Amino acid sequence: MTVPAVAVVDAQTPGNVGTIARAMKNFGFDDLLLVDPPEDVHDPDGEAYGFAGHAREDVLPNAEVVTVDHLVENYYTIGMTAITNEDSRRHVRFPFSTPGEIREDLGGVETDAVLVFGREDVGLTNEELAQLDAIGAIPASAEYPVLNLGQAATITLYELRELAMDETQLPDVEGERADEAQIERLYDQWDLLLEAVDHPEEKRAKTMRMFRRIFGRAHLTEREAITMLGILRRARTFAGGDRSTEAKKH
Amino acid sequence: MTVPAVAVVDAQTPGNVGTIARAMKNFGFDDLLLVDPPEDVHDPDGEAYGFAGHAREDVLPNAEVVTVDHLVENYYTIGMTAITNEDSRRHVRFPFSTPGEIREDLGGVETDAVLVFGREDVGLTNEELAQLDAIGAIPASAEYPVLNLGQAATITLYELRELAMDETQLPDVEGERADEAQIERLYDQWDLLLEAVDHPEEKRAKTMRMFRRIFGRAHLTEREAITMLGILRRARTFAGGDRSTEAKKH
Repeated sequence: MTVPAVAVVDAQTPGNVGTIARAMKNFGFDDLLLVDPPEDVHDPDGEAYGFAGHAREDVLPNAEVVTVDHLVENYYTIGMTAITNEDSRRHVRFPFSTPGEIREDLGGVETDAVLVFGREDVGLTNEELAQLDAIGAIPASAEYPVLNLGQAATITLYELRELAMDETQLPDVEGERADEAQIERLYDQWDLLLEAVDHPEEKRAKTMRMFRRIFGRAHLTEREAITMLGILRRARTFAGGDRSTEAKKH
Repeated sequence: MTVPAVAVVDAQTPGNVGTIARAMKNFGFDDLLLVDPPEDVHDPDGEAYGFAGHAREDVLPNAEVVTVDHLVENYYTIGMTAITNEDSRRHVRFPFSTPGEIREDLGGVETDAVLVFGREDVGLTNEELAQLDAIGAIPASAEYPVLNLGQAATITLYELRELAMDETQLPDVEGERADEAQIERLYDQWDLLLEAVDHPEEKRAKTMRMFRRIFGRAHLTEREAITMLGILRRARTFAGGDRSTEAKKH
């Protein structure tokens, strides 16, 4: 498995470099390489630092300034481009991989790799692309496929996060469905409630199937099932109470 | 299948609204709803328009200003948050869905849905989240899981693009592997070249298996196979030529 470095070639806007550094830190990437960076990219009061969030503490200050030749000579290079060729008649921008395909590729190989992003306006030149080992492209709307540089890098790094991150902030749960005995007790309570509210006998089975369908799709957690169970019990008590009160009135 | 609208609650930075509008247009989404937007969000010379790219032509100017109550009353609401609860003991931020799970959920239902994004600094309040129907969270590094608002929306919209986009800019190809006869001709040429360069007879079969492994993995396109074939033919001719020249010298 390979955790790629990230290179940005000739970015014009320091804010985009900061945005990329932030996305790197958000998804566990460390090595930022800059080719011809904007002048104030290393100014702690500049726009790059302003956009970098906590990446101002490490990813951004640790960024190295390098050349395209350095990338070509030392890395398996994957150039990101918005527009590919239509088919294989020309080689430069074809074949291409989507971010998901790049993740699978790098997941199966151990090497020094780098994702190469180009300029805001024209991306990577054909001359630059011709030197790289692979081409990546983000599928986007045919009507408007040109992404902002920072946004393109953010998506790519998110898609490649499994290569770089050990642990996410999210609890490691698979929906945490309450145990089936708990859920069966819930259906019992629904059944008792239907009885308490005089739901027509002939519709009872069909309605119970509906409850099973609804709660089957919803995958209640333990806590949700317990809360729901309590409410149904109370509803039955009150329904029973109401009816007996009403019965007394008659 | 449901194409959700996108709502941004109380954004502080017009640039983020522009970034979100651009991502919407990049991935085929149309309906932008703004709750308490920043003042100059509708100023064509302002920062929002500056970040919106071509979305300045439609998504951004068509954005409606609404309230959270309006969202709750009219939509299936999915609130996006960076931090969830750890487990099901508290309900407000749990369970949650990842963007991929939201895509599956919305892909299987027909309704009016909206993705709700919160403030840059504090996101959505617990009070707001409590009114919404579902919670979404982007898996990120445990060390630094808090994404920039524009970047969070960009990732979410990319992940949900299949709900909204008819067609991408990328050619619809599955790697376009050259036909097998073409590729077999390539192996024949390698074999002939090995012969021409006096590759040791006993290693020949093993080396040919290596070529099959290498080119098997690389899935050459028709054009690549043809080019390669031409080069090998020439190499064989020259190798043969060289050898006979050399032979004459001896």
